[in-house]
Amino acid sequence: MSGQSEFLPGQRQARRLDLHSGTVQMNHGAGGRAMTDLIDLLFRKAFDNPLLNQANDQARFHVPAQDMVMTTDSFVISPLFFPGGDIGSLAVHGTVNDLAMGGAEALYLTAGFILEEGLPLADLARIVDSMAAAAREAGVQIVSGDTKVVERGKGDGVFINTAGIGRVIAGVNVSGDRARPGDKVLISGTIGDHGVAVMSLRQGLSFSTQLRSDSASLNGLVAVMAARAGPSLKVLRDPTRGGVAATLNEVAQQSGVGIQLQETALPVRPEVRGACELLGLDPLNVANEGKLLVICEADVADELLATMQQQPLGRDAAIIGEVIEDPLLLLRMTTHIGGDRVVDWLHGEQLPRIC
Amino acid sequence: MSGQSEFLPGQRQARRLDLHSGTVQMNHGAGGRAMTDLIDLLFRKAFDNPLLNQANDQARFHVPAQDMVMTTDSFVISPLFFPGGDIGSLAVHGTVNDLAMGGAEALYLTAGFILEEGLPLADLARIVDSMAAAAREAGVQIVSGDTKVVERGKGDGVFINTAGIGRVIAGVNVSGDRARPGDKVLISGTIGDHGVAVMSLRQGLSFSTQLRSDSASLNGLVAVMAARAGPSLKVLRDPTRGGVAATLNEVAQQSGVGIQLQETALPVRPEVRGACELLGLDPLNVANEGKLLVICEADVADELLATMQQQPLGRDAAIIGEVIEDPLLLLRMTTHIGGDRVVDWLHGEQLPRIC
Repeated sequence: MSGQSEFLPGQRQARRLDLHSGTVQMNHGAGGRAMTDLIDLLFRKAFDNPLLNQANDQARFHVPAQDMVMTTDSFVISPLFFPGGDIGSLAVHGTVNDLAMGGAEALYLTAGFILEEGLPLADLARIVDSMAAAAREAGVQIVSGDTKVVERGKGDGVFINTAGIGRVIAGVNVSGDRARPGDKVLISGTIGDHGVAVMSLRQGLSFSTQLRSDSASLNGLVAVMAARAGPSLKVLRDPTRGGVAATLNEVAQQSGVGIQLQETALPVRPEVRGACELLGLDPLNVANEGKLLVICEADVADELLATMQQQPLGRDAAIIGEVIEDPLLLLRMTTHIGGDRVVDWLHGEQLPRIC
Repeated sequence: MSGQSEFLPGQRQARRLDLHSGTVQMNHGAGGRAMTDLIDLLFRKAFDNPLLNQANDQARFHVPAQDMVMTTDSFVISPLFFPGGDIGSLAVHGTVNDLAMGGAEALYLTAGFILEEGLPLADLARIVDSMAAAAREAGVQIVSGDTKVVERGKGDGVFINTAGIGRVIAGVNVSGDRARPGDKVLISGTIGDHGVAVMSLRQGLSFSTQLRSDSASLNGLVAVMAARAGPSLKVLRDPTRGGVAATLNEVAQQSGVGIQLQETALPVRPEVRGACELLGLDPLNVANEGKLLVICEADVADELLATMQQQPLGRDAAIIGEVIEDPLLLLRMTTHIGGDRVVDWLHGEQLPRIC
């Protein structure tokens, strides 16, 4: 079949996309007119920028000589909408943060959508608008994209991949292998908010309306931290899946050190602590989407803490521990009753599809 | 629950991944030990390179001042394995080609995996090895990745997103809006091979063993073309989803021109033509994954053609048409019996999940 029989002069330019009551159809991913309409009338309109508007299969731009970082994340969170955000804002925050944790200012993102046949176009539009708003707020442009559609029952509404590149902030050199005994460990705020908000919603807990995800772009906070303490920053990590426990265990392994936390110093919201008790979760294992861990030289820790606390996203920042020598490379915690325990990674499944 | 009770000294470093009979489990995406084992023992081992081995959530590298391109593609092809390739090699070829169609040499790729619970790890290993081989062949490094797992019935084996960046080859300036009346249109080889091979396999057609996808990285061919005719190259596009018809219609719209094809000049394998007749397809609408369309200034067309024909991936290259003035911005074709028809985009669904 060629498209010839369907061609009617005058209708060639007609564009259709029923954002009110339409749904995603298989032909929205088939490479023809319906896909182009979806891209032009939804994605390109929301993400509007000169690089995307080149309308080629790739964006072209000039860069000066510089250190860059590149990263990617796919997002499969369920449900798609949750208190404090949705899969669209999360997909921007997640990749902007992975760039920021490389000590970099985010430049450009790409966005790849895998849509399930039958997804309401109104939901997709809401997600895309949320992505666009998050990108504007973070000062990053979505410059290239892709859309695929899978049959009903072969996906789950929408999955989003974002990849990104950024330029490393001058004077910053952070990496998971740079922690050394004596360094201090700080967190930018309360832990467990994202994972507990999503799990509470999923479990139908009645207090879930009080819980909100912390999903946010941390590049502004990192820029201020870099300006204050650039060369003294050793490690920057966002404790997402696996939480603070997995992230610090990974750093301990990479750097060949131990880490000692103080339980009393860990900022945890009372409602998150309560929900964790009900759900059988440890806040240390729960995902965050708007928090960072920083390991820095001891002599700048207090000043860095004060700097962070002056920022909206660092208001509840705290020094939570220090790097120690340990041939076993363990993460340990002094408990609130003065005991000492190993904080291991989780082995089993705990929080599926949290991001 | 903390992981403390599961900690046994001496077992801490034990790594387990049963690539022979194991399957993907939800905890392979949960951010804990199982995910790290999967990443270290499968992905990092296969994609091995210094940037990936930084083992941070982002890769860091230096670039000189230069023009760059960035692109992304998600891959949802069904079935995962097909004659001539699999979803892994396709995911590398597709993004390398999108970079090459920007006139660029591929530098770095990212890879995001969305795995369905229950996927045999042996299938995943085969796909990952195939990606690694395709990346080596194209001279591109996979420098950052991400793995998510969705429940059985919420995905379809594996979806892969690749994003990439490349450096624009000096002297090349290609874009879909640069076609001008008088320019020549060339294709690098036979059309429809990929789509017909996959559709035949899916339909269980008995001759499917004779049909192979053309999936391949075109960056080598583009490098040779750029060296020969750099500034005279106007448009480079790979006719994937939607085929030659959708691609050239898009270029006509972007450039504000018409395009006239010669049906007798279009290279089509006899077995592809036969399968298209059986399946009710037009080779012009069928996806290619190892072919490029180039629009160039008329005076270099013959020389460029000869250059392409000397390359393994350009052996069957042909001049298939020219750019004309047309206020209706139509793609037309002179048929083999001397008639003239409009070649429109497809409106309906034709080839779902072809890439």
